[in-house]
Amino acid sequence: MEITFTPIGKIYSPFNDPKGMPIQPAGAGDVMGRVVLFEAYSEGLTDLEQFSHLILLYHFHQSRGYALRVTPFLDRCTHGVFATRAPRRPDPIGFSVVRLIQRQPNELIVGNIDILNGTPLLDIKPYVPTFDAHPHANPGWLADKAEKSTTIRSDDRFLA
Amino acid sequence: MEITFTPIGKIYSPFNDPKGMPIQPAGAGDVMGRVVLFEAYSEGLTDLEQFSHLILLYHFHQSRGYALRVTPFLDRCTHGVFATRAPRRPDPIGFSVVRLIQRQPNELIVGNIDILNGTPLLDIKPYVPTFDAHPHANPGWLADKAEKSTTIRSDDRFLA
Repeated sequence: MEITFTPIGKIYSPFNDPKGMPIQPAGAGDVMGRVVLFEAYSEGLTDLEQFSHLILLYHFHQSRGYALRVTPFLDRCTHGVFATRAPRRPDPIGFSVVRLIQRQPNELIVGNIDILNGTPLLDIKPYVPTFDAHPHANPGWLADKAEKSTTIRSDDRFLA
Repeated sequence: MEITFTPIGKIYSPFNDPKGMPIQPAGAGDVMGRVVLFEAYSEGLTDLEQFSHLILLYHFHQSRGYALRVTPFLDRCTHGVFATRAPRRPDPIGFSVVRLIQRQPNELIVGNIDILNGTPLLDIKPYVPTFDAHPHANPGWLADKAEKSTTIRSDDRFLA
């Protein structure tokens, strides 16, 4: 069974090359980007300006194929791909929480962007702390490594 | 441009009917479910047992079509669909953070499940507080409503 989605817009960022870009929003503190919706969908943004943070779902469009075990940027040993945030996944859907800075009719200015320039956008959802914030969750093998995501940059290991 | 995904497994829950099910994981406190991966993907779960919370991405398979303005379960007035978590979205991808209770070779027992029985699974990601927890984010129109998600149940408004 296959499921087909059509992008609703595009994400623009300063990152044209996967090499050297931040690997998580936390590492992209001051980096701003634009989320541009195709005009047919603009009305769907109504009231989004009330939220400070957004969930973006997008297509890892430069990722080719997948591996079930990967060595992620933040570790030296392999982990199952579903225990990592690496882009080469069976269904290469990216997930980032970004800060909403400004809403224009069919465009959002966002901060903390860790997304490649030209990325196809699949969905925008409002970030709701009651649903989405679990500050005491156990971060597994990332326990002493997640903080490093603010300084480590990506390389081209997940490209074809 | 179309993007095609293939489900990696299925989500099983006690909710066979969208009517009356919890509308968010926060409202599904003690409800347990199973996330079963197709065996070809089992190895990708390696080390996932280290995490206490998981991100599930799935297909809102019973949602038909979409509306750009919707009246969500938690409010009486309309909002842009991207400012809500309603399932009738242009790309009907569901997102839930669930609690991981137990991992078996190709199966996960999870808590706080707010997902319809038989839902096609697209991706599993580890929940990492450094990346994903923003407890002080502004929840917009949901400010005085998100807490109600623990008691309000869904109806059939988002079905075709």
